Amino acid sequence: MYLDKITSPADLRALDLNQLDELCREIREFVVNSVSKTGGHLGSNLGAVELTIALHRVFESPRDVILWDTGHQAYVHKLVTGRRDNFEQLRQRHGLSGYPSRSESDHDWVENSHASTALSYAYGIASGFETRGETHRSVVAVVGDGSLTGGMAFEALNNLGHKGRRTVIVLNDNGRSYAPTVSRLSTAVSRLRMKPQYVRGKSRIGEVLDRVPLGGEVKRGVRGAAAAMREMWEPPAFFETLGVRYAGPVDGHDIAQLEAALQDATEYDGPIVVHVLTRKGHGYSPAEDDDEKHLHDTGLFDPATGPAKSSGNKRPEYSKAFTEALLRHAEKDPSIVAMTAAMPGSTGLIPFQKQFPDRFYDVGIAEQHAVTSAAGMAMTGLRPVVALYSTFLARAFDQLTYDVGLHQLPVVFCLDRAGITGPDGASHHGVLDMAMCLRVPNMTIFAPSCFEELTIMFDHAMTITDGPVALRWSRGAAPSAVDGAVGSGLGARKVRDGSDVAILAVGSQLHASVEAAEQLSSQGLECAVWDVRLVAPLHRAMLREAAGYPLVVTVEDGIRVGGVGSAVADALTRLTDVARLPRTLAIGTPVDYLPHGDAETIKAELGLDGSGIAATIYKQLNQSGVR
Amino acid sequence: MYLDKITSPADLRALDLNQLDELCREIREFVVNSVSKTGGHLGSNLGAVELTIALHRVFESPRDVILWDTGHQAYVHKLVTGRRDNFEQLRQRHGLSGYPSRSESDHDWVENSHASTALSYAYGIASGFETRGETHRSVVAVVGDGSLTGGMAFEALNNLGHKGRRTVIVLNDNGRSYAPTVSRLSTAVSRLRMKPQYVRGKSRIGEVLDRVPLGGEVKRGVRGAAAAMREMWEPPAFFETLGVRYAGPVDGHDIAQLEAALQDATEYDGPIVVHVLTRKGHGYSPAEDDDEKHLHDTGLFDPATGPAKSSGNKRPEYSKAFTEALLRHAEKDPSIVAMTAAMPGSTGLIPFQKQFPDRFYDVGIAEQHAVTSAAGMAMTGLRPVVALYSTFLARAFDQLTYDVGLHQLPVVFCLDRAGITGPDGASHHGVLDMAMCLRVPNMTIFAPSCFEELTIMFDHAMTITDGPVALRWSRGAAPSAVDGAVGSGLGARKVRDGSDVAILAVGSQLHASVEAAEQLSSQGLECAVWDVRLVAPLHRAMLREAAGYPLVVTVEDGIRVGGVGSAVADALTRLTDVARLPRTLAIGTPVDYLPHGDAETIKAELGLDGSGIAATIYKQLNQSGVR
Repeated sequence: MYLDKITSPADLRALDLNQLDELCREIREFVVNSVSKTGGHLGSNLGAVELTIALHRVFESPRDVILWDTGHQAYVHKLVTGRRDNFEQLRQRHGLSGYPSRSESDHDWVENSHASTALSYAYGIASGFETRGETHRSVVAVVGDGSLTGGMAFEALNNLGHKGRRTVIVLNDNGRSYAPTVSRLSTAVSRLRMKPQYVRGKSRIGEVLDRVPLGGEVKRGVRGAAAAMREMWEPPAFFETLGVRYAGPVDGHDIAQLEAALQDATEYDGPIVVHVLTRKGHGYSPAEDDDEKHLHDTGLFDPATGPAKSSGNKRPEYSKAFTEALLRHAEKDPSIVAMTAAMPGSTGLIPFQKQFPDRFYDVGIAEQHAVTSAAGMAMTGLRPVVALYSTFLARAFDQLTYDVGLHQLPVVFCLDRAGITGPDGASHHGVLDMAMCLRVPNMTIFAPSCFEELTIMFDHAMTITDGPVALRWSRGAAPSAVDGAVGSGLGARKVRDGSDVAILAVGSQLHASVEAAEQLSSQGLECAVWDVRLVAPLHRAMLREAAGYPLVVTVEDGIRVGGVGSAVADALTRLTDVARLPRTLAIGTPVDYLPHGDAETIKAELGLDGSGIAATIYKQLNQSGVR
Repeated sequence: MYLDKITSPADLRALDLNQLDELCREIREFVVNSVSKTGGHLGSNLGAVELTIALHRVFESPRDVILWDTGHQAYVHKLVTGRRDNFEQLRQRHGLSGYPSRSESDHDWVENSHASTALSYAYGIASGFETRGETHRSVVAVVGDGSLTGGMAFEALNNLGHKGRRTVIVLNDNGRSYAPTVSRLSTAVSRLRMKPQYVRGKSRIGEVLDRVPLGGEVKRGVRGAAAAMREMWEPPAFFETLGVRYAGPVDGHDIAQLEAALQDATEYDGPIVVHVLTRKGHGYSPAEDDDEKHLHDTGLFDPATGPAKSSGNKRPEYSKAFTEALLRHAEKDPSIVAMTAAMPGSTGLIPFQKQFPDRFYDVGIAEQHAVTSAAGMAMTGLRPVVALYSTFLARAFDQLTYDVGLHQLPVVFCLDRAGITGPDGASHHGVLDMAMCLRVPNMTIFAPSCFEELTIMFDHAMTITDGPVALRWSRGAAPSAVDGAVGSGLGARKVRDGSDVAILAVGSQLHASVEAAEQLSSQGLECAVWDVRLVAPLHRAMLREAAGYPLVVTVEDGIRVGGVGSAVADALTRLTDVARLPRTLAIGTPVDYLPHGDAETIKAELGLDGSGIAATIYKQLNQSGVR
């Protein structure tokens, strides 16, 4: 096993090309076996094996800086930087992060895994090296084709070109990104490949390269040649108008070719793109043929057969309720359009896309544009439904409030992965959505506590026409109704009676809150529990009733200060007919970055499970002398 | 006067070219006189006179949609859509807005004036017209060259090109944008002009056009011709690689030429850029020669002579303290770099730029890139100072928390125009900065209450190395210290004693709070007043002392819920050694969009002046039975 001998990038430089080929085979086997036992990102990492090895042979990390955009393609990088033994605990609490992590290794620089950022980091780091006289250090950004659809990447390219900053930009182009690529830029780029299978045969890429008009003239008058020229011309022209040199395309599964191209790039005194064609899942046929992306971010599977076609969850997910409700409305109302930022599958929009292709918009990794173009659509009377991950709404906070909100437009935001999401770590938890939406004047915010509530709330959301609406729900299987009942309209629902404490529970925290109330009941403390349902505007009848309790506790899986707790506390001080206001206690996530790990484990650590909530309430009551 | 007869765009279509020339002269005279009496944006509007008239003759607003990016170039549009008489009250409370405003006219669509949004609105509106079968309606976006440096504009161009959406994009290129243009794209674009004066003589533009290689071949081997080709090639190539057709350049002060180009553009079935060269301030020499941009957003002036070189404020502005402190530190510490997003002048960075050109970064209208590249710089040991308007931080909330914050990088954010800013309306008030920064773990936030405090706080900010820091201050003249004294370090400062109420005042709200305390004192109510100074982390000694009062009032010029008030209320519930917690009352701006107008007027309306604060406190105490 060559892999046994690789403890740092220097060990890679001791191997010859044949040995490297064998190493790549071993790495693929290791990654497939490892991810089959832990879950994780598979296809993107299998596609980046040769590229990662070539990078670590040409550049000397960590003297040279290698940045991954996004970080889920960094497993091989982790393997060759001494972290092989940690893969058994991949993405588990206190185990290996699924992204680069500075606490794990000096070879890792960036922990955030929102896309399109690496070129800005690269610009900053290259500028720093320039100012500090460390220009012998190279800066390399490995950027997926999807990441280039983000406006931030363009801002960085424009500035890299303007300043002529020395940076190697490796465009890791697998032609698929998160979704069938919608970007025209990516289309131009991927037209370079002849067929999806081109990388299987080395001769294919040779054919492509032969057609590049390097220095010479392309024959005119021949239609095929003209088209070929256009194919060749577009990616270079795009980068070069921005002042960024273009080189490629290069076969991303040929180490010798990759090394030669990267070596050449280091000699260019300015920003240069090395266009590398890779194939997601390369070398593992279940992942190569994974058109429905079961192996993008996968659960456990059998390495011999690949994943089952259906994930086989027993309980349905929230997003299923969303998909069904959206289709039901869309069938009746032709003004409904749906929008995603490169996440049609995981946001549940694929059935809509299939049924209503003309009313479906995938704008690429471009949340800002998604939100403001939805505003434009609403101005013409369309009813846009924007499906985003909760965490990515932070990319479009400005557009949410000043484009959609200021114009009071009825755009419906469907925020999946809200709250504690689990294995992907700090930048993927969805703890800020309510803190943002609560700052948007006149925005209606629903938090469904169960599958059925989401259906009811979506119906209601579609009746609201005087401003934006958000629905936010957690990842994965939806709980069933806590007591078999559901609410309606713009009201909260009282789920449990009790006279000592009023608990206002938000969304999927309802279940833990009821559990807490039951535990406290056995200690002689009776808590009433409301399913808040509507985070904004808060239900006045609920507030008035809660105001009669000595203690009002809010429970939410979002950031504690500035979330529902703060909104409730403020609303209580405004209840003018109440002489004595209750004490309030907000339970939620701390103002801190949350770790990766199993969602239930993290919730328990944060005191957001039944026992944790019960303990916090009990402590507060004892210390304040109410009991 | 032709202007007297123009009550709607239809009236423009009745005039011939000679009459239009005379009308343009009248409009310029009107705009100069009007703005000299009210203040407002001058240069950009004088540059857009012919363009606006041509647009309204070729397109039929409001059937056709004309979008302005940004809206400060829309004065002439307002003049020809029946709002001439309202110019006397420009930007005053209940007067004419300085931007498009839907409540003023059906011809106005977008009220937000953050840059780079119009192409996304255009995409959305064009998509809506397509879906609804209203394809006879044209969508026109008038976009400044500076706006194209924003990533959002790129996201939109990419999607417009991909979908082939029928849109006319008028690139209003005055080659200056907000700042000396830093964008390489804009550089390429502006190389098209021969000299700054090119528009004065019609023949100049003719020369430029003669050099465009329209359909033909450009002679090789001649150095000048090759350079000319490159100049001609870059802007078309950039747009065309994105699938957007390019036409131009067109003389932006020649109505006939403009109309011909716009008419041609309407016949193109897809997105097309019409590149229009205009000259800021055209036709009014003080504004044409206004290199220091006194007439970009001007106060009152004498139309005959233009503005005085210095604004002649008696009291110094907060930004002067920032400029001085920054220079003082930068002279000693070569690792300090400064960054702006196209606002070097108004953020006070020009002296830094002059003294340290290599350490100065103007990234264009690209807040996302500014923040993340500052993160990259800090990773290499540089000390970046990012100077932004408070309101534009919303463009980079994601980058602030996941790029700078998550990596605990010592980037110093200097947020000017925080709080109520006045004449520019809803999207320019800076009421969200604290609500955002307070959600960033481990971020230190200073709010200086006077000129001297800003100096002290900046010194202190530069000693903090374990995470981001923000300083936020209001527009315009800084107050002097309320009692002649200042604070120090990370502590609050008690400014006034009293036993009935604890008032915690933030930044420039200190003065109004002290005034309120004095008014209440005359009613027999004694309020202690703290200058909070440090919004995060809150000073524990202040909290402990305040917790002993029956009522704790926070006063801030930011959004009330989710701001300092919410942070104080939450912190008080966590003070474990306090048996009985005080009632809290947060005074701040409502969760609502604020109008334009004089800042003092708006503050008084919102109850944020001395009397308003006093009245709110008095009412709360009476109603809660404390008195």
